[in-house]
Amino acid sequence: MACPIKHPTLLIPGPIEYDEAVLQSMSHYSESHISSSFIETFSETLSMLRKLFQTEDPSSQPFVISGSGTLGWDLVAANLTKPGDDVLVLHSGYFADSFADCFEIYGIRATQLKAPIGSCPELAEVEKALREKNYKMLTVTHVDTSTGVLMDIKSLSELARRISPETLIVVDGVCSVGSENIEFDTWELDAVITASQKAIGCPAGLSISMFSGRAIKVFKARNCPPGSYFGINPCNLKLLANSSTASFKNWLPIMENYEAKIPSYFATPSPQLIHALHTALAQILSKPLPARFKAHRETSQHVKEAITSLGLKQLASRPENQANGMTAIYLPEHIKASELLSSLYKKDVIFAGGLHKDIAMKYIRFGHMGVSVVSAPFLAFSDTLLINFLDGPEKK
Amino acid sequence: MACPIKHPTLLIPGPIEYDEAVLQSMSHYSESHISSSFIETFSETLSMLRKLFQTEDPSSQPFVISGSGTLGWDLVAANLTKPGDDVLVLHSGYFADSFADCFEIYGIRATQLKAPIGSCPELAEVEKALREKNYKMLTVTHVDTSTGVLMDIKSLSELARRISPETLIVVDGVCSVGSENIEFDTWELDAVITASQKAIGCPAGLSISMFSGRAIKVFKARNCPPGSYFGINPCNLKLLANSSTASFKNWLPIMENYEAKIPSYFATPSPQLIHALHTALAQILSKPLPARFKAHRETSQHVKEAITSLGLKQLASRPENQANGMTAIYLPEHIKASELLSSLYKKDVIFAGGLHKDIAMKYIRFGHMGVSVVSAPFLAFSDTLLINFLDGPEKK
Repeated sequence: MACPIKHPTLLIPGPIEYDEAVLQSMSHYSESHISSSFIETFSETLSMLRKLFQTEDPSSQPFVISGSGTLGWDLVAANLTKPGDDVLVLHSGYFADSFADCFEIYGIRATQLKAPIGSCPELAEVEKALREKNYKMLTVTHVDTSTGVLMDIKSLSELARRISPETLIVVDGVCSVGSENIEFDTWELDAVITASQKAIGCPAGLSISMFSGRAIKVFKARNCPPGSYFGINPCNLKLLANSSTASFKNWLPIMENYEAKIPSYFATPSPQLIHALHTALAQILSKPLPARFKAHRETSQHVKEAITSLGLKQLASRPENQANGMTAIYLPEHIKASELLSSLYKKDVIFAGGLHKDIAMKYIRFGHMGVSVVSAPFLAFSDTLLINFLDGPEKK
Repeated sequence: MACPIKHPTLLIPGPIEYDEAVLQSMSHYSESHISSSFIETFSETLSMLRKLFQTEDPSSQPFVISGSGTLGWDLVAANLTKPGDDVLVLHSGYFADSFADCFEIYGIRATQLKAPIGSCPELAEVEKALREKNYKMLTVTHVDTSTGVLMDIKSLSELARRISPETLIVVDGVCSVGSENIEFDTWELDAVITASQKAIGCPAGLSISMFSGRAIKVFKARNCPPGSYFGINPCNLKLLANSSTASFKNWLPIMENYEAKIPSYFATPSPQLIHALHTALAQILSKPLPARFKAHRETSQHVKEAITSLGLKQLASRPENQANGMTAIYLPEHIKASELLSSLYKKDVIFAGGLHKDIAMKYIRFGHMGVSVVSAPFLAFSDTLLINFLDGPEKK
């Protein structure tokens, strides 16, 4: 059930509208972070994440840590790569630039394979790049929130495994987990990082991720950075990860213990947020995942057809690269994004402006994920409203 | 008002019991993180933090970031120190060890000044250490959650300013902000880091901190680490902080903008947690701060007198080093901590076990912070219960 308190409907590509039961879980009375009741909740939450990511491999490891989606980048860069490593970053919008920045902070060489706005690197280009250099890691933004471009993770992973089998495959799934199909085991992924506030449908504040047994092995086999720090024994275990907040050394035992229902402490988790995540995941898993992804595809298709029928274009130019949880729409010349968003706001519907800095004023973004998709009449109203606004001025 | 849902009363030194209005704010309907309504809330929250920390200096900067208290250590280590710097860590329990570990991860030499369990380094020892070496920073755990030892920040700061005026003074206030008086400006502090779930009384999930203008200047004047990273231009701005999640370069403009009510984006904050923090801070500031600290002192005094009258000892040996928000109590030989905690749990009251690894089984911890202190009858009940349990077996 959608939140019953009257408020403007939030249809941006995250944070999304939350189910009432999820919001009520946020008000859970205070519990100790090492109480058996909370450990039970945390353990079940981690187990449910395995189902959402479709992994049955016991060597995979889910992580849930207080933080935002960006923390996932630190987890990857601080633990799975070392200063001097080469990483290939596939660019389909704003967020690849930021992930590349994060790598550079850790002294890792990030090579971006860029595509024009609205598209993504071709498989042939990725193949060429992988043949040219030995990359420790390949990163892919599954859905770029700034452009709504969807990348085909399955094909990319097959390609990478064939050309460069040692390369770790890392997916930025912040805007895809919960709305796009992700088969962690079958696609042989090494890491998928995400956040709570998008298609998973839990308020912001949690970094959520899944790492493969292979990724964990790479961390455990990690040597220390080559003479990185002045005056410190370079084989000091503490240097295994060059960040404290993001260190697997700190977090791995905690996640293993919580899932095994053993009280454990590194930093205090947020029981309230984890209760809300538990509620959100239980709702998602109460129905078959394929049905959930189908609902997102159908809703998305409906929106995209309406947009196309008005003669409008999406940023994502090819149908196979259009995300199912959001649509980024180029506005007609005579419609100003700020005015459109204000008009819609007066009708109690919130869409998002552009985020890709080169064309930010020329487009808007419409998020259709989670409860908004399940609760169809409510979405259909907003959908119709947007279409009317976009259609209206031209007819006049 | 305390949470009305029946549940065991949580009297551990954090997370604490939360006020019902704070918990209700956690269920706030979804808002965009760049909406004017949320920006208003975030801006007011940052302004209220200035009041809680008693700073009127406009060059001070509050930070609120999704994360746990540990993130504060990363903020300090990644931004205010550089590999090779020397830091003096005053040790009064478990948490100084962890802060020192965090510094080492960043390549900073942490020298710990240790004291026996239950006490803290003497001013004369600190003076000697500061005269012997040029320390970039002095860190102090205001109240160590593992021991309940309170350090005299005012005197330490006066000493450090006199002996080594360039040394930055950093306070770990995770277990003190909201229950102990902290005069950021008057005491000339450079950083106080804390978390939401203790005496501030907002559910866990937020790292909260205040930095002085001097600390911000140190960050801005920061050179790059000396040849730390292979193959990267050592004067690359991106290397200013060696962590992405904790980087002032990423966060400083965001905090400045939110307070100035300018939409801004680096990572998605948690509107729900920030609403809850707003509610908690508004409640704290609705009464004069001195009255709040007096209430904590009086409650603490009451607990400590009862403990003493039973012939029991606290970990914190000297009255002037006893925290006002918690009490760590050595158990009589014949009382097992686990059995005591179980018996109390059956009466719906939760106290915490020991945390200091050398003596963890020999003591318990009693948190008396925030709503538990304000809501006196409720605390008095638990208080009496504990005393009865401690007193009972001896009488029998």
